[in-house]
Amino acid sequence: MAEPGSVGVVETQYFTFAQDEPFRLESGATLSPVTLAYETYGQLNADRSNAILVLHALSGGAHAAGYHGREGHLPGWWDDCIGPGKALDTNRFFVICSNVLGSCYGSTGPSSIDPATGRPYGLRFPVVTIGDMVRAQVRLIDHLGIPRLLAVVGGSMGGMQALEWAAHHPERIVACIPLATTARHSPMLIAFSEVGRQAIYADPAWNHGDYYDKPQKPDAGLAVARMVGHITYLSEQSMHEKFGRRLQDRERYGYDFQTEFQVESYLKYNGNKFTRRFDANSYLYITKAMDYFDLAAPHGSLAAAFARSAHVKFLVVSFTSDWLYPSYHSKELVRALTAVGADVTYVDIQSTWGHDAFLLEVDTMTRLLRSFLDRLVREERVAPPPVPVPHASS
Amino acid sequence: MAEPGSVGVVETQYFTFAQDEPFRLESGATLSPVTLAYETYGQLNADRSNAILVLHALSGGAHAAGYHGREGHLPGWWDDCIGPGKALDTNRFFVICSNVLGSCYGSTGPSSIDPATGRPYGLRFPVVTIGDMVRAQVRLIDHLGIPRLLAVVGGSMGGMQALEWAAHHPERIVACIPLATTARHSPMLIAFSEVGRQAIYADPAWNHGDYYDKPQKPDAGLAVARMVGHITYLSEQSMHEKFGRRLQDRERYGYDFQTEFQVESYLKYNGNKFTRRFDANSYLYITKAMDYFDLAAPHGSLAAAFARSAHVKFLVVSFTSDWLYPSYHSKELVRALTAVGADVTYVDIQSTWGHDAFLLEVDTMTRLLRSFLDRLVREERVAPPPVPVPHASS
Repeated sequence: MAEPGSVGVVETQYFTFAQDEPFRLESGATLSPVTLAYETYGQLNADRSNAILVLHALSGGAHAAGYHGREGHLPGWWDDCIGPGKALDTNRFFVICSNVLGSCYGSTGPSSIDPATGRPYGLRFPVVTIGDMVRAQVRLIDHLGIPRLLAVVGGSMGGMQALEWAAHHPERIVACIPLATTARHSPMLIAFSEVGRQAIYADPAWNHGDYYDKPQKPDAGLAVARMVGHITYLSEQSMHEKFGRRLQDRERYGYDFQTEFQVESYLKYNGNKFTRRFDANSYLYITKAMDYFDLAAPHGSLAAAFARSAHVKFLVVSFTSDWLYPSYHSKELVRALTAVGADVTYVDIQSTWGHDAFLLEVDTMTRLLRSFLDRLVREERVAPPPVPVPHASS
Repeated sequence: MAEPGSVGVVETQYFTFAQDEPFRLESGATLSPVTLAYETYGQLNADRSNAILVLHALSGGAHAAGYHGREGHLPGWWDDCIGPGKALDTNRFFVICSNVLGSCYGSTGPSSIDPATGRPYGLRFPVVTIGDMVRAQVRLIDHLGIPRLLAVVGGSMGGMQALEWAAHHPERIVACIPLATTARHSPMLIAFSEVGRQAIYADPAWNHGDYYDKPQKPDAGLAVARMVGHITYLSEQSMHEKFGRRLQDRERYGYDFQTEFQVESYLKYNGNKFTRRFDANSYLYITKAMDYFDLAAPHGSLAAAFARSAHVKFLVVSFTSDWLYPSYHSKELVRALTAVGADVTYVDIQSTWGHDAFLLEVDTMTRLLRSFLDRLVREERVAPPPVPVPHASS
């Protein structure tokens, strides 16, 4: 038996398409074939109306819930909120999470083999957009035989994808839940992205993206990029609470350039750890996709972008201490959605955790998501899935 | 004749001390000799009571006003506020600005020659503190024969030095004007410092600080460090106003990794420009000095740190959009100063310019500084200097 509240041991699956007809990107470039890594939790109901698509942020992957390998080992990135009885209750919903195009976690990206050369794409991989990521997800949802998703939900870049679904594929969703995000990447976000990219470019081991068969990877540059990112996910207050000015393994100042403050040690440790799990080129491509994200620009206004989304039910959530995606971005979004007559619930959650709050405020998020989904189930008369068969633990 | 409002063409001067008896640092290490680069503007009055010491920020130097070389060429970093009729009126005050210990602008620092080896110090240079910088300035003020400064004034790291004067050399000042600063470097500030340092360490050309005689300098790492810093000096709103999502030299997205947004171009240009004027090792040493700055810790509380400063008159200024040194840091400082009975004027200026506001809000700063200094002149009966002799332009 799986532990209570866990979906248990899960495996990533792979869906490959565009083998014959290439997948055309917003840039005009094409990709063939395209693979998406994905996982599913729970069961689809008889009329396929209980599916929820979970969308991940910059460094996430398809593994959102349960464990890889064995019980308790490598939990999914949103295991706090996905499982039997949890916010996204897998006794009621069929939950899907797909790794984005351009990533390094099983979906086609710059580290994938380019069929034209038999070698990893590197910088020959075409630049992809949030729109491209979502159009690939539409193909996956088609493949799974789901006519309409009950909800799309995600935070940060996941929220951008959720909004992209609502703006450009509204007929395929009932509800959209963007968390701690924006409909339009701000110049400050672009600035932080670009600093991260410059740190990678500056690493000689990056070698213009051509490092996959080299002994040295651009780990130093990627670690600096991650450290910059990491700071922006926290708040000044959470750093005070978490680290203060405390020293690590020292009683007093060392008067040298060793890592000595706890906050330095934490950032450095996590920056280095990140290089063992993420690909520097994927970092470039995904941050670029985020920088390009601007739902308003092609339509003239944000309201125009959601012209076809009046029937979509929105739960928009922001966090008071999120200075990377400040609440006023969500408020602008809410104004545009209200202008087109959409049904919008907006909550600005008091939190000291900064941008990361969408992952850390589990109790609040559970209450909010549960009551919103309850309402959807009631209004859309979503039938339960077949009674789950208890699965043996591995 | 100098142009109106300008102090005209000026020259940097040098004061060298500790040739015989080494200068002892907080760390216990010693330096010998120590040179400080400095400039002065205006004239000392008969009783030497009209001197104001201007203290610079991380990347500043002694050249605060007027021009180097020829009229209109290389203005000082605070030329907006220093000159005849300006906020720090050189017709009334004798204004001094000294480059800090550890810098690369003429004062002794890691790029100076180590007399022990005949080669640049590099990382053999001892780590210095804000306290060390200020004790060196005390030596300069002694050398200039000034018993008591009318005021010490500075923003950011300059404000830390001003507070250090007030806490540890209160008998040498009448007034203290800390702008956009803190009495205790926060974990977020340490985090941003450390990311900048890690970017420098990650550059192979840094070579553990030993690059002065090498053809390549750690410019790539220093540029990334500067880019990170630069973002933190702005506000989200000022970036919206200044850059928005506008592209540079392009009509539409290039779907490549060229610099394309104006904000990217601005940061990259300034990052690269910085490497032509600043030394990477000085960046390490000066950020480290800032990280160590915590007036409260050795005394148990901030109020205890200012126990001897009750007679000092303070003008504390913060800026509403400064998220690097948020207003609440200044408010904590004001509470501590009030607790010891000091005379404190506090202004939290509404500004959209972020941390850089202390340099950019010239009109507001001019009004504030002028009225505060007028009050000092009145209360301290500061006599005017001798009538200035018009000097020929060069």
